[in-house]
Amino acid sequence: MKKWVYLFNEVKEVEKLAGGSWDGVKSIVGGKGAGLLDMTRAGVPVPPFFTVTTEACNAYQAGTKFPAGMWEQELKALKVIEKATGKKFGDAKNPLLVSCRSGAKFSMPGMMNTILNIGLTDEVAQGMIAATGNDRFTYDSYRRLVEMFGTVVMDVADEAFEHPMHQYKNQKGYKLDTEMTGEDWKAVVEIFKAAYKKETGEDFPQDPYKQLSLATEAVFRSWNGKRAVDYRNKEGISHTLGTAVNICTMVFGNMGDDSATGVAFTRNPSTGDHKMMGEYLINAQGEDVVAGIRNADQIEDLVKQMPQAYKQFMDITAKLEKHYFDMQDVEFTIERGKLWMLQTRIGKRTAKAAVKMAVDMANEKLITREEAIKRITPENVDALLHPQYDAAAMDQAEKEGKFLAKGVNASPGAAVGQIYFDADMTEKMAKEAKQQTIMVRPFTKPDDVHGMIASQGVLTSEGGATSHAAVVARQFGIPCVVGASVIKIDLEKREMQVGEIIVKEGEWISVDGTTGKVFVGQIPMTTPTLEEQTELMTLLQWADEVSARKGVRVDVNGKPMRGLQVWANADYPKDAQRARSYGAVGIGLCRTEHMFFEPERLPIVQEMILSETSDGRTAALNKLLPTQRKDFDGLFEAMDGYPVIIRLIDPPLHEFMPDEEKLLEEVITMRVKGETDGLKAKEDLLESIKGMHESNPMMGLRGVRLSIVMPEIVEMQVRAIFEAAADCTLRGIVVKPEVMIPLTGTVKELEWIQPRLVRIASAVMAEKNIKFEYKFGTMIEIPRAAVTAKEIAKQAEFFSFGTNDLTQMTYGYSRDDAERNFLITYQEQGILGTNPFQTIDRDGVGKLMQWAINEGRTTRPNLEVGICGEHGGDPNSVEWCHIIGNNYVSCSPFRVPIARLAAAHAALTHRPKAAVKKPAAKKPAVKKVVKKAVKKVVKKK
Amino acid sequence: MKKWVYLFNEVKEVEKLAGGSWDGVKSIVGGKGAGLLDMTRAGVPVPPFFTVTTEACNAYQAGTKFPAGMWEQELKALKVIEKATGKKFGDAKNPLLVSCRSGAKFSMPGMMNTILNIGLTDEVAQGMIAATGNDRFTYDSYRRLVEMFGTVVMDVADEAFEHPMHQYKNQKGYKLDTEMTGEDWKAVVEIFKAAYKKETGEDFPQDPYKQLSLATEAVFRSWNGKRAVDYRNKEGISHTLGTAVNICTMVFGNMGDDSATGVAFTRNPSTGDHKMMGEYLINAQGEDVVAGIRNADQIEDLVKQMPQAYKQFMDITAKLEKHYFDMQDVEFTIERGKLWMLQTRIGKRTAKAAVKMAVDMANEKLITREEAIKRITPENVDALLHPQYDAAAMDQAEKEGKFLAKGVNASPGAAVGQIYFDADMTEKMAKEAKQQTIMVRPFTKPDDVHGMIASQGVLTSEGGATSHAAVVARQFGIPCVVGASVIKIDLEKREMQVGEIIVKEGEWISVDGTTGKVFVGQIPMTTPTLEEQTELMTLLQWADEVSARKGVRVDVNGKPMRGLQVWANADYPKDAQRARSYGAVGIGLCRTEHMFFEPERLPIVQEMILSETSDGRTAALNKLLPTQRKDFDGLFEAMDGYPVIIRLIDPPLHEFMPDEEKLLEEVITMRVKGETDGLKAKEDLLESIKGMHESNPMMGLRGVRLSIVMPEIVEMQVRAIFEAAADCTLRGIVVKPEVMIPLTGTVKELEWIQPRLVRIASAVMAEKNIKFEYKFGTMIEIPRAAVTAKEIAKQAEFFSFGTNDLTQMTYGYSRDDAERNFLITYQEQGILGTNPFQTIDRDGVGKLMQWAINEGRTTRPNLEVGICGEHGGDPNSVEWCHIIGNNYVSCSPFRVPIARLAAAHAALTHRPKAAVKKPAAKKPAVKKVVKKAVKKVVKKK
Repeated sequence: MKKWVYLFNEVKEVEKLAGGSWDGVKSIVGGKGAGLLDMTRAGVPVPPFFTVTTEACNAYQAGTKFPAGMWEQELKALKVIEKATGKKFGDAKNPLLVSCRSGAKFSMPGMMNTILNIGLTDEVAQGMIAATGNDRFTYDSYRRLVEMFGTVVMDVADEAFEHPMHQYKNQKGYKLDTEMTGEDWKAVVEIFKAAYKKETGEDFPQDPYKQLSLATEAVFRSWNGKRAVDYRNKEGISHTLGTAVNICTMVFGNMGDDSATGVAFTRNPSTGDHKMMGEYLINAQGEDVVAGIRNADQIEDLVKQMPQAYKQFMDITAKLEKHYFDMQDVEFTIERGKLWMLQTRIGKRTAKAAVKMAVDMANEKLITREEAIKRITPENVDALLHPQYDAAAMDQAEKEGKFLAKGVNASPGAAVGQIYFDADMTEKMAKEAKQQTIMVRPFTKPDDVHGMIASQGVLTSEGGATSHAAVVARQFGIPCVVGASVIKIDLEKREMQVGEIIVKEGEWISVDGTTGKVFVGQIPMTTPTLEEQTELMTLLQWADEVSARKGVRVDVNGKPMRGLQVWANADYPKDAQRARSYGAVGIGLCRTEHMFFEPERLPIVQEMILSETSDGRTAALNKLLPTQRKDFDGLFEAMDGYPVIIRLIDPPLHEFMPDEEKLLEEVITMRVKGETDGLKAKEDLLESIKGMHESNPMMGLRGVRLSIVMPEIVEMQVRAIFEAAADCTLRGIVVKPEVMIPLTGTVKELEWIQPRLVRIASAVMAEKNIKFEYKFGTMIEIPRAAVTAKEIAKQAEFFSFGTNDLTQMTYGYSRDDAERNFLITYQEQGILGTNPFQTIDRDGVGKLMQWAINEGRTTRPNLEVGICGEHGGDPNSVEWCHIIGNNYVSCSPFRVPIARLAAAHAALTHRPKAAVKKPAAKKPAVKKVVKKAVKKVVKKK
Repeated sequence: MKKWVYLFNEVKEVEKLAGGSWDGVKSIVGGKGAGLLDMTRAGVPVPPFFTVTTEACNAYQAGTKFPAGMWEQELKALKVIEKATGKKFGDAKNPLLVSCRSGAKFSMPGMMNTILNIGLTDEVAQGMIAATGNDRFTYDSYRRLVEMFGTVVMDVADEAFEHPMHQYKNQKGYKLDTEMTGEDWKAVVEIFKAAYKKETGEDFPQDPYKQLSLATEAVFRSWNGKRAVDYRNKEGISHTLGTAVNICTMVFGNMGDDSATGVAFTRNPSTGDHKMMGEYLINAQGEDVVAGIRNADQIEDLVKQMPQAYKQFMDITAKLEKHYFDMQDVEFTIERGKLWMLQTRIGKRTAKAAVKMAVDMANEKLITREEAIKRITPENVDALLHPQYDAAAMDQAEKEGKFLAKGVNASPGAAVGQIYFDADMTEKMAKEAKQQTIMVRPFTKPDDVHGMIASQGVLTSEGGATSHAAVVARQFGIPCVVGASVIKIDLEKREMQVGEIIVKEGEWISVDGTTGKVFVGQIPMTTPTLEEQTELMTLLQWADEVSARKGVRVDVNGKPMRGLQVWANADYPKDAQRARSYGAVGIGLCRTEHMFFEPERLPIVQEMILSETSDGRTAALNKLLPTQRKDFDGLFEAMDGYPVIIRLIDPPLHEFMPDEEKLLEEVITMRVKGETDGLKAKEDLLESIKGMHESNPMMGLRGVRLSIVMPEIVEMQVRAIFEAAADCTLRGIVVKPEVMIPLTGTVKELEWIQPRLVRIASAVMAEKNIKFEYKFGTMIEIPRAAVTAKEIAKQAEFFSFGTNDLTQMTYGYSRDDAERNFLITYQEQGILGTNPFQTIDRDGVGKLMQWAINEGRTTRPNLEVGICGEHGGDPNSVEWCHIIGNNYVSCSPFRVPIARLAAAHAALTHRPKAAVKKPAAKKPAVKKVVKKAVKKVVKKK
């Protein structure tokens, strides 16, 4: 006979069936069942229970009836529980009540059903009152059973119970449930039973076994309920796993002053401090603590009221932390002096607490440093370093009545800005008036995306977490609150209103996408620095150590490699300084063209562009040389000892010229009006700009192409780089300049330009009579460069993936156009899972990168490979860079800490098998034990 | 002792040394030496000769002196020749004169040196006059030796001889050399010897052996002359091959009336007719025939004058044709009744003759059909089908004095157009006034390219075959004549002048890039049809048979494949008809959007685009449905029985809208002038068009992206396709529609759109109650589509490479911009060998194609793969398509014959080894012999 049911003490049998795999155990008895079995085995006092397996659920789904023998096994298990508890199911004198809960392999919170107090009948209720003298508790429990059973098992609508309950309280003039007496609950039980009969056509079952049987079946059925199916679709959980059913003895904290109930965290979930934090209530039920019916006592007070139970509780929770190697969130009940642990789970915590706990636990040797690193997510780090409202200022704002509304927290982050009620206006004020803007709309459409992108934050009065505004805002990382329905938006009057408060277009509000709160006015924000956060500093230091281990990877030639370094993209010395303070060990991209846009330089740049001769260009460029040299000087100084990659000019020249359309408008206007003064000059300029016009500038005359057609600019740039590097060297600074040539598509481009530039480098070093190391390399951002990387590596001494352009060209998506025109639709329709401009498309772009590295290293085994596209700060993309063998990722300075963590995660996730075993063998015995324990946990998770 | 010298009868020794390889023989004794050896072996009377090897040349280069033993071997060989001829080197009574010619492995025409008449001295001259009684001939030969020896061996400048020669003739009042008498030549010999002494400080050597030794050395030296080095660099010939030196007995056709000299072709090189064609002169020298000093006799007249020599000549030439399996271009001399063959080589011929000869020879069983196919180049076919001047009309024009000038024939083809003197004007008149234009400039610069592209032809008064104009014109296939220096261009007056003739801007001229001739006025052109050219039809039929052989290739799964089919790109029924008559067996691309541009449809298309609702769009599209259905109806009818691939709408919608800049001008003008009538409508339209603006439309909202955002258009198109196909089927036409989805980048796009379209196809077939086969497939034109082809093939039933876009995106070159901005520079600088938009870039784009086919066929082994980019008609690209396993290429109807030939060439060049042997084994014995002979020739070539 197949075994469908496992008792609380049968963990070994399940393990055996699962072939020793804890994952297998969870597959059989579900996550909750596995947890209960594990706690029981560990000697934690858990109320006796048994679990009906997921296989039984699947067998039920197949035949819509219990599989043969299952019910008999439930009855038999019940007998064992009766024996263990000394109570009897359905016995009025000494009744055993049970709960019936679903529990699938993966947690699906709130998706499936629970029924408590099974076993209560009219007769049993009488017996309980007799035994406990507590009619209020008894009838309250009974009415809960009737309601839960009715709604969950019999599909009765909630209103069928809620409505008469409401009526009863109105009649009595009660506002709160606590005002209800035992008599009142008794009356409600009768009302509920009548409602039950009316809705189902049957009496509420007075047979406890029938209750249990129907409840079990209801849990099975709930596996295929709409909510559960939707959830699984969303989360990618298989529909064939099935749910287990856990039947557990009910215990009660409200059986008198020797009873209590409480919840606690083994460490402070807000700060991470290593101190138990919790609350309890004497003579109360679990939910009363959460509901805040009475003021709960702090957990440390329990030592006075129930010293023995307190000591046992502290011992058990300490044990649980050690058993699960993490902070626990526990629920407990003391029934007549006896402590029962009802649940333990890994406790949720703030980002700050997560980091502190991880570092503390590693220092306590509870977990390894590796485990500590793994526990912190990139989002944690992001949250700790992102601008956020000053907490005191937010409290102050609430006190001052500036709180406006609370909506759905659709996209996290804090924003402050001036409001505008349409996308065009929002974009205009953001771009032209350089305002910080917040776009406010009833809801958004694809047409509104340009306004959203231009905003600090987005607020809508309609829609939920999956509305257009929410999806787009999350996609672009814009703080967003949606569905703040109390806000009345008047698009005609250009204002919004909540009660008395009216906010007009152009006025300031603050939107907190993390909490969903909206305030009038500007709440000050703070950006925490990394230095302030010592635990995070420590953790990232450990992360760097993991990445720096030799042999965490093997390259294409079979050579052991270190993990990823993290460099930063920085155009100015101040960015470089920040990058360094955030842990960057190199500059992966300095964009030189930004320097050309500076107001005092732009006219010279334009003069250079409009020159018709090489001499004219050179004359203008000579004026730029000293300032450009100074730019590089500052960078080298800031990065003393670290490599600095400087990219030669990349954009098409027309980007430096005045706007064509505006000029055209001016010229036409002058012509029509017959104004001649200055017309000729404007016409000539317009003609020049028109001459530079390109149909697809993204794929036009830029990067190395421009340098070949017009080499004077890069010749000046290379001179500036090497003059600055030479000057710095003379000042005792260690410089490692790497000159990066953008947009290479064929090695012949490098063969043409590189020797010309190397000659300049050599000339400068000869002039200054000094030598230092340097490299010339190229971006890999054209698909053809990736395909022909073997050739390109013959010239290029390093590769840096420009994944923005590589993505544009591999997909054939013009980024600006695509995000506006079809990327949203593509994501909504599931054609694109993630935005390839945020996360590297591993199947397409990523394949080309992998090919490029492998081919490049067959030519040049020590080829240095990096990435300087925006993907360099995206954790998933960082992982891909680790897998394919990048030496480093380079990202914006603010993303450096995130990338450092992501790099370590990648190193830990993908280390070769040999590398996993080695360190263990080298460590002293005591650590070995911890390691083993950790491994066990990892296995169980 | 190493053997440096081989005699005329030592062919076997050389073959042995070369390991039996004829290529090896040529490596040792050069191409010319090998030819002389081969003729001698075949029993053809060749004047006795010997060859100094290329190895001797290389040994000389290494030490700048003759290698040990070489000169002694030359002397020994000379003795053998003396014996064979019965003459003696340096013997005044019976002198042997020799020529000394270079001869490298590969022909390098005009690049290296020749010295004739070696062995003539003052004393020998006297002896020759005594023996022949011909002082004029003797002194003429002598003065030639002095001049050649002086310039070639001693590096004396040409002028040192030309100037005094000129003076002498002036003194005498002579205009032509023929007026010179024996006495005159005798005087010139003295003058030349004096000049020789003046320039070199030495007397002209009177020792024949010194002459020979210095001449040999001069030929060695000429291998490293600047001209020769440049030539080898250009042609990619190795500099280490060295040249052989051929020392050959001089024979003379001017020794009396029993002597003669002539040239002949074994078949008519102009028409291909199988009839000897040639000319000869009695008592004359070879060059006299070419120079046309006297009217030469037709070769057939020789039978009367020298019947024996004639018969021998006819026998020998027939033998030579059979020996070399091709028409021969021979030179011969009859010295005192004895016939000597001085040279035989494969004769040059017109395209027309080439095709006729190839087909004739195959029919004569002289060569195989395969060999016939191989002999014809794609350029031959192109020439036969390209528009060309009507020959009679051209003669007429010359007679009427319309001939203007002759320049360098820089880029072949005939052009007729109105002239303009700058690029902007040329482009403007071509685009706006829709004129046929010819751009005329003194010379061109990169700025002028847009004008050239817009022209029918280009004419310059300066520059040569490698000038900017020439390079660009060849690149774009524009007929071009450069360096027509008699033309005086006056850019101010906007006219050009030759003598009395003045041609003003806007007037017509005709430019023949094939001959370099320029005419005033319009010379009528004719486009020959394929049907008119029966031999070409036959040859292409044979080519198709080669391609259709099963097993000429093996696909990625090891399955034998046929060669390439040739399909055509055709948008309209008339194109399809032409394609079919040119041999296309399918339509590989019908662009549906061209149909939208037709004047009566465009307003409806614009109405559709401007509709804000799906219903509005559908209403407009319903109006287009009947016309679109009619388009397809005609196509299916024309291609009855063959597949027709129809591509769904591809371009971005703004292409169908009015020009934005023009509209902007109108709106501004109205605003400034205060005109309000109709302003609002224009403003709204402008706003709509601005809303459609894309930064990089090439990578924007088009193709399948547009279809997903706005499916109504393609739904209409698919309905039109299937309604037309159903109607045709009912009329008894066999339809094979294939619906092609453009711009796919991920299989998810196909997963989204394809089922929607298949549903429409099924619905139409159900409505019409009919079934026919059809396919849905995709373009592979986005790099990511190629990279992820394995996935894409799960949906797509066929692939068609859109190599235009694939090249654009793989290189990141926007075609329009690139050709104007940097492609020319890139080609000039050697960064791009060929224009990747003309010939597939095998290393980059081609690699992606190969990957896509291989991956696609792992998913779908029978995946049909084609190419519909412009490369489909480029022979080199066709070859690549064969190699990687395309099923067909599709090109413009006019290129179909070229592609058919190229496909057969590819099949013959790349057939698997097994396939090469098989047919031979199956053929009857007689053919076997021919085959063997052919193989031998092939080997020798």
